[in-house]
Amino acid sequence: MTTIDLANVYLGYIACLNSQDWENLGRFVQDDVRRNSTMLGLSGYRRMLEDNFEQMPDLHFDIQILVAEPPHIAARLWFDVTPKGQFLGVPVNGRKVAFAENVFYEFRGGRIQEVWSVIDKAGVEGQLR
Amino acid sequence: MTTIDLANVYLGYIACLNSQDWENLGRFVQDDVRRNSTMLGLSGYRRMLEDNFEQMPDLHFDIQILVAEPPHIAARLWFDVTPKGQFLGVPVNGRKVAFAENVFYEFRGGRIQEVWSVIDKAGVEGQLR
Repeated sequence: MTTIDLANVYLGYIACLNSQDWENLGRFVQDDVRRNSTMLGLSGYRRMLEDNFEQMPDLHFDIQILVAEPPHIAARLWFDVTPKGQFLGVPVNGRKVAFAENVFYEFRGGRIQEVWSVIDKAGVEGQLR
Repeated sequence: MTTIDLANVYLGYIACLNSQDWENLGRFVQDDVRRNSTMLGLSGYRRMLEDNFEQMPDLHFDIQILVAEPPHIAARLWFDVTPKGQFLGVPVNGRKVAFAENVFYEFRGGRIQEVWSVIDKAGVEGQLR
């Protein structure tokens, strides 16, 4: 798979998330996907995403930087959201916060096999002080 | 600059940091470098790195994932360190912690122009509970 092919698959994945098209998530994510060294599997991965949208109904994935070199994608994602309750252990309680997620993906067979994500918790805390 | 050239420049940059070879930092970093939207400049960037080594004398940059697509590099860096005092606002006080930094770089003229870094603060906190 070329760099451009892989980037296009990733754009399809992000469009799938933004439309909450969970029936098609398996086109982009492997059955035995792992995230931050935890085996979630496709069903656990879908549940995590559904929980995210439940907590943040205005959730939207915005790609700020996309770096593709097969079999890896790295993306800097930007969020402008109003999480209910605690978010990352921070009592956000419905206030508006903006933050980045810097995330790496390893693809196998055109689907996401492993994810290594870091969310800017310090940035969220800084906005609530 | 090709993907391989850019990756090699980045490996040289990381070797420069690990050997604290500050006299040569300017070979890899632009005079007007920005980090997380703050203008540091080469001298401010060097001071930040020197401060990091002062706080963590066992600091070592270990590349876990490297994704290169000119003009960008994305790297997942791994650290196994014993920071003095507060680190990321967390009272680490000389305990050993391991954490990731997911970081993006934009290069211009073969040198780093801008950096977008997220460090896994939640991961550090989790180890001290």
